Amino acid sequence: MIARADCEALDWADPLRPFRDRFELPPGVIYLDGNSLGAMPKAARARMGAVLDQWSRDLISSWNIHDWIDLHERVGAKIGRLIGAGAGETIVADSTSINLYKVLNAALDLRPGRRVIVSERENFPTDLYMAEGVIAGRAPGHQLRLVDADGVMDALRDDVAVVMLTHVNYRTGRMYDMEAVTRAAQAKGALVIWDLAHSAGAVPVDLTGANADFAIGCGYKFLNGGPGAPAFLYAAARHHAGMRPVLSGWFGHAAPFAFEPSYRPADGIVKMAVGTPPILSLAALEAGVDVMLDASQDALRAKSLQQAEVFAALMEQELAAHGFRAASPADPAQRGSQLCYDHEQGWPIMRALIARGVIGDYRAPNILRFGFTPLYLGFTELWDAVAILRDIVQTRSWDKPEHHARARVT
Amino acid sequence: MIARADCEALDWADPLRPFRDRFELPPGVIYLDGNSLGAMPKAARARMGAVLDQWSRDLISSWNIHDWIDLHERVGAKIGRLIGAGAGETIVADSTSINLYKVLNAALDLRPGRRVIVSERENFPTDLYMAEGVIAGRAPGHQLRLVDADGVMDALRDDVAVVMLTHVNYRTGRMYDMEAVTRAAQAKGALVIWDLAHSAGAVPVDLTGANADFAIGCGYKFLNGGPGAPAFLYAAARHHAGMRPVLSGWFGHAAPFAFEPSYRPADGIVKMAVGTPPILSLAALEAGVDVMLDASQDALRAKSLQQAEVFAALMEQELAAHGFRAASPADPAQRGSQLCYDHEQGWPIMRALIARGVIGDYRAPNILRFGFTPLYLGFTELWDAVAILRDIVQTRSWDKPEHHARARVT
Repeated sequence: MIARADCEALDWADPLRPFRDRFELPPGVIYLDGNSLGAMPKAARARMGAVLDQWSRDLISSWNIHDWIDLHERVGAKIGRLIGAGAGETIVADSTSINLYKVLNAALDLRPGRRVIVSERENFPTDLYMAEGVIAGRAPGHQLRLVDADGVMDALRDDVAVVMLTHVNYRTGRMYDMEAVTRAAQAKGALVIWDLAHSAGAVPVDLTGANADFAIGCGYKFLNGGPGAPAFLYAAARHHAGMRPVLSGWFGHAAPFAFEPSYRPADGIVKMAVGTPPILSLAALEAGVDVMLDASQDALRAKSLQQAEVFAALMEQELAAHGFRAASPADPAQRGSQLCYDHEQGWPIMRALIARGVIGDYRAPNILRFGFTPLYLGFTELWDAVAILRDIVQTRSWDKPEHHARARVT
Repeated sequence: MIARADCEALDWADPLRPFRDRFELPPGVIYLDGNSLGAMPKAARARMGAVLDQWSRDLISSWNIHDWIDLHERVGAKIGRLIGAGAGETIVADSTSINLYKVLNAALDLRPGRRVIVSERENFPTDLYMAEGVIAGRAPGHQLRLVDADGVMDALRDDVAVVMLTHVNYRTGRMYDMEAVTRAAQAKGALVIWDLAHSAGAVPVDLTGANADFAIGCGYKFLNGGPGAPAFLYAAARHHAGMRPVLSGWFGHAAPFAFEPSYRPADGIVKMAVGTPPILSLAALEAGVDVMLDASQDALRAKSLQQAEVFAALMEQELAAHGFRAASPADPAQRGSQLCYDHEQGWPIMRALIARGVIGDYRAPNILRFGFTPLYLGFTELWDAVAILRDIVQTRSWDKPEHHARARVT
């Protein structure tokens, strides 16, 4: 039996507790959707003010004197430290979708003669959409081979150029064994692209240890980089020489300000940059990443797992026999930083939760998704969230029409 | 003979003068480089604060309750009004380079069997680089045919699929007759892409009147959208049905939040969006566009031409026989909102100017570029700028080493 006082005790003992003060969080809200949009670090406000000062005061010179020109490389390197990349293997640029387009093309170029992209049927849709676009633009015969998560290993035949997977599934939280899948794919001559959207800042990632080829990911979830924050891109150094960017813009040129008449790619990861990066959004991302870098990734993982354990136990304790079916892997080692439940009233229940200040997420058809962001989420909040959920279910208050207007979250 | 008092009188008579108060400008600086990075509207500061409040308080719900989800369409529509686009023909997305990639591919798809892209040798380099990347990714035989500005009409042969031109040349300010070039190209069966980087907010543009096919442009120059502001994309409505986006991301999907397994493009211009847009940078862009929308484009053009006339007259009056050669077209109708001069000491002179607070731009090999931004630039500033330039030239003070450290502007 877990009492509220037990959760309060966990909060007092939590070594990450001081990080909560580094975020601006609204009163009366329990935020279980930091895996959609991370909360705002207080430093983001000061940082935006500083960049606005630079812009207004130093105008064009700011590109040099405030190092805007290197910002995408600097923030990329910082994210690289969070995901076990080597120096010069990560950069911030564009969106996750566009970065996927770049590395998919690069990987296919590195495997001429092979024409199959393997991915998971339940991958995040935009990844599949982008792959369709890549295929449409390449020679006939290229194809996307979609399999279930359990079928990835069996799909690794000799025609596979690229395996493109999201490390932690956006809906179920299921997490692949990055090292094992990478090794198996490479043994068959394929390259692997990991989408780290729900991994970076959420679970320990060691791209170097896993011998990863390529990775991409987004800045606005667990990295707390702000709405639509620019995305990141990783390419193992061994692939740099062979990558010819398909999006060959001036920021990826070896000498962007020499205004040479022809494209000549930069040597390293910088060649994967394209156009002028959005400095305001990029600076906000840096503020988020800086907070994350101050925390131990192992401590974050330990608290994340503990929060999931407490949440699952509370769901069992308070809501057994109310129709919630766990939709995430039972084994914590196979799970990211979220828990999902299937319920036939999933959407009205989530709507009612949101109306009462418990912000989770809903994914069709029936999935309620609860994300754990150990930097700023407390154990007592989990207790309160489940208590509110129990109240909603016991009173069937999800039918109340006054909830409908407030809860338009997608 | 133009005296400083004459310029003061012009400032007093200037109907656009009140707009200067809507910008935060540093004291002691004469800014003649708003065509590289526009100045900061005061509204940008309040707007950033508001978006940060939304993010921190309403978190994920902000996408709906603060209409972040439509922001790229709304700002796109506003920019559309500045460039004579019809409703639903413009969107804000990504960078200028990436938008060029999208419309180049769309245009080539619409002209199967033709494999030549015509452009100008002196086009802004990233446009040429992106075209090289597009060509490398398409069937053999595609090629970039580069000509001088005067040779565009002669290059319009039957094999031309696309004419890709920057309306106002970034270095010389030379401006094409958009309507005439478009008509000639279309008469030969080609489509035309206009890069409006130095046009939007700088000169009147009437895409509808010119029967333009496609256009792209950037938000951080005359639109004052902030460093690296997202870019815009225009496609004439008649092409929408035939465009299949090569960058097929979820923000361009007909139902992005239905999470369908396959890509299905949205009906209109929205299909050209790709990933989640950077909301902070996008909101700052809206602040800049809103100021621009309050001004009459005709009044802006009139003042721009008058500023160029005054500046040219002052250069003649004060600096004749000092080695400055006008490098912009003499005919104002063939010029954007800038004047360029060629001088064999171009770089050290610009360095010295910047050290004394006159911020112009330098473009290799010898071009001094002075941009006129009538929203916030006064006539008296022009007089003072030329006076400082005269002093530098007469005293040969460009050789002074103390200037070199401060002036690292690219």
